[in-house]
Amino acid sequence: MTLIQSSRIQNAALAAKVVTAEEAITHIQPGDTLGLSGFTGSGYPKAVPLALAAHMEAEHAKGNPFRVRVWTGASTGPELDGALAKADGIEFRLPYNSDPIAREKINSGRMNYFDMHLSQVAPMAWQGFLGDLDVAVVEVSGIRPDGALIPSSSVGNNKTWLDRAKRVILEVNSWQNPALEGMHDIYYGTALPPHRKPIPLIHPDDRIGESTFRCDPDKIIAIVETAAPDRNLPFAAPDANAKAIAAHLLDFLEHEVRVGRMPPSLLPLQSGVGNVANAVLTGLLNSPFEDMTSYTEVIQDGMIDLLDAGKLRMASATAFSLSPEAAARLNTNMARYRDRMILRPQEISNHPELIRRLGCIAMNGLIEADIYGNVNSTHVMGSRIQNGIGGSGDFARNAYVSIFLTPSTAKGGAISAIVPQVAHVDHITQDVQVIITEQGLADLRGLAPRQRSKLIIENCAHPDFRPALRDYVARAEKDSYGGHAPGLPREALSWHQRFIDTGSMRF
Amino acid sequence: MTLIQSSRIQNAALAAKVVTAEEAITHIQPGDTLGLSGFTGSGYPKAVPLALAAHMEAEHAKGNPFRVRVWTGASTGPELDGALAKADGIEFRLPYNSDPIAREKINSGRMNYFDMHLSQVAPMAWQGFLGDLDVAVVEVSGIRPDGALIPSSSVGNNKTWLDRAKRVILEVNSWQNPALEGMHDIYYGTALPPHRKPIPLIHPDDRIGESTFRCDPDKIIAIVETAAPDRNLPFAAPDANAKAIAAHLLDFLEHEVRVGRMPPSLLPLQSGVGNVANAVLTGLLNSPFEDMTSYTEVIQDGMIDLLDAGKLRMASATAFSLSPEAAARLNTNMARYRDRMILRPQEISNHPELIRRLGCIAMNGLIEADIYGNVNSTHVMGSRIQNGIGGSGDFARNAYVSIFLTPSTAKGGAISAIVPQVAHVDHITQDVQVIITEQGLADLRGLAPRQRSKLIIENCAHPDFRPALRDYVARAEKDSYGGHAPGLPREALSWHQRFIDTGSMRF
Repeated sequence: MTLIQSSRIQNAALAAKVVTAEEAITHIQPGDTLGLSGFTGSGYPKAVPLALAAHMEAEHAKGNPFRVRVWTGASTGPELDGALAKADGIEFRLPYNSDPIAREKINSGRMNYFDMHLSQVAPMAWQGFLGDLDVAVVEVSGIRPDGALIPSSSVGNNKTWLDRAKRVILEVNSWQNPALEGMHDIYYGTALPPHRKPIPLIHPDDRIGESTFRCDPDKIIAIVETAAPDRNLPFAAPDANAKAIAAHLLDFLEHEVRVGRMPPSLLPLQSGVGNVANAVLTGLLNSPFEDMTSYTEVIQDGMIDLLDAGKLRMASATAFSLSPEAAARLNTNMARYRDRMILRPQEISNHPELIRRLGCIAMNGLIEADIYGNVNSTHVMGSRIQNGIGGSGDFARNAYVSIFLTPSTAKGGAISAIVPQVAHVDHITQDVQVIITEQGLADLRGLAPRQRSKLIIENCAHPDFRPALRDYVARAEKDSYGGHAPGLPREALSWHQRFIDTGSMRF
Repeated sequence: MTLIQSSRIQNAALAAKVVTAEEAITHIQPGDTLGLSGFTGSGYPKAVPLALAAHMEAEHAKGNPFRVRVWTGASTGPELDGALAKADGIEFRLPYNSDPIAREKINSGRMNYFDMHLSQVAPMAWQGFLGDLDVAVVEVSGIRPDGALIPSSSVGNNKTWLDRAKRVILEVNSWQNPALEGMHDIYYGTALPPHRKPIPLIHPDDRIGESTFRCDPDKIIAIVETAAPDRNLPFAAPDANAKAIAAHLLDFLEHEVRVGRMPPSLLPLQSGVGNVANAVLTGLLNSPFEDMTSYTEVIQDGMIDLLDAGKLRMASATAFSLSPEAAARLNTNMARYRDRMILRPQEISNHPELIRRLGCIAMNGLIEADIYGNVNSTHVMGSRIQNGIGGSGDFARNAYVSIFLTPSTAKGGAISAIVPQVAHVDHITQDVQVIITEQGLADLRGLAPRQRSKLIIENCAHPDFRPALRDYVARAEKDSYGGHAPGLPREALSWHQRFIDTGSMRF
């Protein structure tokens, strides 16, 4: 690898620290805890983890153990989680993962995984609950003459990693658009109790911090230059189910505005990632709502469309999660978008204080919900983790209204998304106000469990599964030990067992 | 009932509205929604609900239906929930109940119950999610010459009920100590989004509001005078288990201070109600910690002792929950305690923004926990509700550290508090950092599920149940569908089924 010495490093003392990735990783020892940048496939380091993975494989071949503990913002890319997991180099991982190789290690018990609320990573790191942080490995888009670091396409926990780590390795990625500079808002007002103060953010558009990261230059032990793209994955076009879900959601929002429970420009939108979420955002293109805002985790394709259409006034997030087409569009027009987007640390984008204050409309996906409105977002059949809870708990509990969206079936109809009892709980009924499938919408506000079960089954479950759900409820209401949330422990998880045994929840 | 016309009503126009409880209830119609005062047996109206219950029974005897919807702060007393439930007069109840008659109606499906996070009652009422509020029935301890209402021994949701209700009935209770005046802090800065602002509370001692309630006098349709005590229940002396739990907790807190993760005066304490909680507070009497504070829901006996001993600097809550002895002690010395206690609306005592900012140490009880650290606080065998989630979710998710305390067995050893899988989830693993039983303590911070199960079984489960739990884990790790949180759906709830079938979880 040659040293590029691009114009991105404008501080002479730091420019002198440019090395190859192979040299940089000599500062990483077996057993180290690494705090890496990266959130939903954007802004993660592209060279150092690959070099580290190659070095680990070489060491493993010699019989030398070499594993590290990996902290990030959220999911990263194949060059980070994929490569390190493939090298069997991750002994511990937090707070979120979507890499298939790492997922396989986690689900086979060969990688310890700590699945966290994304808002709590930085505070818990500061509180000392997670142990020491040895090395930060953070991608930036440039270094200013004064040594300030210009963030990249995600902010995540980078501020915390740079502050807490004993040593810092930077990747300066010249693929990132230089016009990113000025988009970020890095809040430096957090503290440990008893010294915490109100966070002075009142509107999603407020800027309360600085546009760059501070970093003690003496801690920076290596800088690696890269010119590699983020992992931008294509989005599938919304299918009929996604469009039907979006239509039910729009009906609900229009109704809430009509009866005066929401303002005509709605409230700041939070949206999970994925095709259903994107369909919802696309649906808002043709909605009557104007001057909308977004206070969310990631800026997705649909938000770019809404910004372009003038429907969305601004979007606040901690990262981009774009298709290649949308990323190209963003990069071509970055200067134009920059004043209408803010990227913040994830402890701010997901902060309970701010979500509650702003009154976000939370819209998240799920794996399964049960007849009382408990939601499983993470564990297939209760035991196999898919990705992690991410920020869904931060938003669902503190939102103005918490909405969960899902097709009513999965795996070609073999799995019902509505079950007698979820096999794992991420969101309790108190945090679930509305459930929407392509079949319809269940508005659970103010309803007791026995009322919720009727509504969820009749409005949301797939018709093929309704008779069995009705039958379960009828028998549970008759035979349950307690009658508040009637259930039959012998049978409550039998749908999952049947899937495990036969490959289908169908009878 | 005679009209007393005590000196507690110092506003002439309002004094003219004094009527009997029997007259007051003529303003309540079948189907009305009532917002009543009351939180953990303090400050609830004592006369109007009794008169209403008698009227309902008379109407029912004539074949006329008469039921109402009941909103409160939390639990109340037998004169409210007990009497109205006995009259079969409650069609809907929120947000928390501990009355045995109401519990029985809820568990037999004859009363709809909406079990809510206590911090969310006021906001959701304002958001219009719970429907209209017809009549507020609020106990106060006096009325000032300017018509301002002096709160009673609990604040709860009274501010919201007085603001939102179409009509207001007051009970002025001369049993309440007049020296309560000045203890309360009623914050009037809440709003609906997009108009919410930071809540300017930085220390548990901060006063950010007014000492009285405002109320439009034109809405006040009746005032009833009472002189009746709150329902103060005796506390049992801590047993050996409670003392052992308290000792483990103190060890933990001392360790956290020693390693620098907590300041020497700790952080604001939140404590659930009950004998274990009280044992913990008693244990703090003999701890090395000085200048402690409390930011919690209720002020209990143990806190009075800590205040008396000079260990606790001040206590902030929304209500009192005292034994008759402690209530007498408080009443005798109210003037001395008043400057060291603050009672606030429950949306403030339990506000996620404030709990996170202050960094509360949350200490709550549970019904059962599972081997991965999920906690069930509400539903015996998954279906029979005991009380409700109350404020435990507000505190557990937002605390600096969230600790759950329980004896390792219940029902004379027939029930294990540690089970393969909880039958109902109130607190997900992300919100449970420490579990303590009389057996020991499991510090779950930073641990993956397979690590948590070992620790919880070996440190917290009762020795009688450990072999079966170990056996379950061993088989689950071998045969589970997914290996992140290994489980066997066929068997996961079999301990509950065995209890239902045989009266014991033992094999």
